[in-house]
Amino acid sequence: MATNKQIHLVSRPKGEASVDNFRLVEAPVPALREGQVLVRHHFLSLDPYMRGRMNDSKSYAAPQALDDVMIGGTVGEVVESRHEGFKPGDQVIGMGGWQQYSVVDPSHAGMLRKVDTSHVPLSAYLGAVGMPGVTAWYGLVKICEPKAGETVVVSAAAGAVGSVVGQLAKIAGCRAVGVAGGPAKCEHVVRDLGFDACIDYKAGQLERELATACAKGIDVYFDNVGGPTLDAVLPLTHVHARIVVCGMISQYSATEPYALKNLRWVLVNRIRMQGMIVFDWKARYGEAVAALGAYFAEGKLKYRVDVVEGLEHTPAALNKLFDGSNQGKLIVKVSDEPA
Amino acid sequence: MATNKQIHLVSRPKGEASVDNFRLVEAPVPALREGQVLVRHHFLSLDPYMRGRMNDSKSYAAPQALDDVMIGGTVGEVVESRHEGFKPGDQVIGMGGWQQYSVVDPSHAGMLRKVDTSHVPLSAYLGAVGMPGVTAWYGLVKICEPKAGETVVVSAAAGAVGSVVGQLAKIAGCRAVGVAGGPAKCEHVVRDLGFDACIDYKAGQLERELATACAKGIDVYFDNVGGPTLDAVLPLTHVHARIVVCGMISQYSATEPYALKNLRWVLVNRIRMQGMIVFDWKARYGEAVAALGAYFAEGKLKYRVDVVEGLEHTPAALNKLFDGSNQGKLIVKVSDEPA
Repeated sequence: MATNKQIHLVSRPKGEASVDNFRLVEAPVPALREGQVLVRHHFLSLDPYMRGRMNDSKSYAAPQALDDVMIGGTVGEVVESRHEGFKPGDQVIGMGGWQQYSVVDPSHAGMLRKVDTSHVPLSAYLGAVGMPGVTAWYGLVKICEPKAGETVVVSAAAGAVGSVVGQLAKIAGCRAVGVAGGPAKCEHVVRDLGFDACIDYKAGQLERELATACAKGIDVYFDNVGGPTLDAVLPLTHVHARIVVCGMISQYSATEPYALKNLRWVLVNRIRMQGMIVFDWKARYGEAVAALGAYFAEGKLKYRVDVVEGLEHTPAALNKLFDGSNQGKLIVKVSDEPA
Repeated sequence: MATNKQIHLVSRPKGEASVDNFRLVEAPVPALREGQVLVRHHFLSLDPYMRGRMNDSKSYAAPQALDDVMIGGTVGEVVESRHEGFKPGDQVIGMGGWQQYSVVDPSHAGMLRKVDTSHVPLSAYLGAVGMPGVTAWYGLVKICEPKAGETVVVSAAAGAVGSVVGQLAKIAGCRAVGVAGGPAKCEHVVRDLGFDACIDYKAGQLERELATACAKGIDVYFDNVGGPTLDAVLPLTHVHARIVVCGMISQYSATEPYALKNLRWVLVNRIRMQGMIVFDWKARYGEAVAALGAYFAEGKLKYRVDVVEGLEHTPAALNKLFDGSNQGKLIVKVSDEPA
């Protein structure tokens, strides 16, 4: 019987997660029961929400259990199936977690979806055409309803979600302004992704540069970070602006919450601010993935992946999301794709 | 020619407004031009938004001009008309300002609406069946869309807007929980207005008492005050809660903005938070006033007025809105209604 390397969460981090919060465990791959599918993972996805799940506090999802496989999105290949909807060789996306193999029961709790890799590479289904892309699509297109000529600002603009938000804003005929950390990311966002401008918040002139880049005011803000960036955006909003609160990267590892000073602009400009979690919109995944896949195939949706090699490096790699050192969608290569 | 007593704003307050910021001025009542109407005011309305207008900062409306009549809603009677839509004796509501008479040009910028006083007293058109009532109706019914069985919390619950919000929540089959300052207001809100509970924030146990009164979580929060009350509500929200930000009484005279700590709940519970200014919804006034007038005539909408006698006492009376000493809708009696 094959061995399945897994990474378990064994203690809850305070502040930043450390490799000591995790343990590499070897377990046998269990035999399949009727209705189950065995998936061999090629890539697993590292995403900011994971840090929140490690806390034992009330949030939109139950905390990650201790001494169990860390949750996470995965793409891979069916290697054995006792479910009539799947056969060996199928390329699939699921929530397989931080391990080499997962056993999924697609008819019950388990999510497993076959994907078409003829025009879109498998790894993209963890990024621009996967959960982060769906997040961007739903949050921008459906919640914020941008109109041609409006100005859309997105934070974490070089990240997996933000990079798609800006490109979708351009497709909608908007001015796209990113906020990212460091000149390299900002250059990538403008040159490679086609944003109109990108502001390096680390340069210390966020408010002034935002005001310059958004001379007609901000109509839409897609917030991935919370904290001081939101405070800088609020006074620059246009009347009836829409803000989708999609993430608070700046807050996930914070021990004291940031205190927001400019909420009065919600009243002054009659802003609609809406929290959004992509997992609420599972019913729209198909529609979103179809739209994103089509943009990708047409060359209108570019993306970059930052690939970490080897499951055992996953815990150390996670913090790249929070210290800003990842360059594009952060994924871990768990095994080679078959030739 | 008749004399028109007026109150002008002559300097901009820092913090609380003082009587020294105003001056009583006597001006002649001008002769009417074609298309104009002369209105004699019986009551004028004192409302929290007025304090914000006295500031010289960007807000949803232009600042109140210095050395000019303070703006404000008024009800009164047409005494002379050169407009075909109005005749002497018509009971009207308008934005006549802090003065005894106003000259209105209803076909152009001036707002003037005839009201039916057969079932609703004239003064109610400044309160439960007027702008505050419309604010409550639009913010609660149209923005928050409360469903039967949900829990609705409203701050400044004994105020002109809040008192209507809670009664509309009860009409919609919701649990209505108020927040107000002091035991007398709380008793009024529960006993006279029919709320299920009312919490005295001055008693210092706001978070604990809110949690007890809203055991199933808060589905809708109608925010008139901002500040610490909003911070107390956010962690108690139910998933997909709606918050309408309708006022920030606690902030209007503040020299430093309150720093909000619990914004993360907007993400956690996917809250929709929306700023609202009733002046955006002029097109819906008629619909709202008809609904409110019908509830009033059926005895389902109770209200209380706090009447200050005499135009000259208007400046001193304004601060009753901010120190919480008014008992119900604050209005100033400018002249007697005709017998």
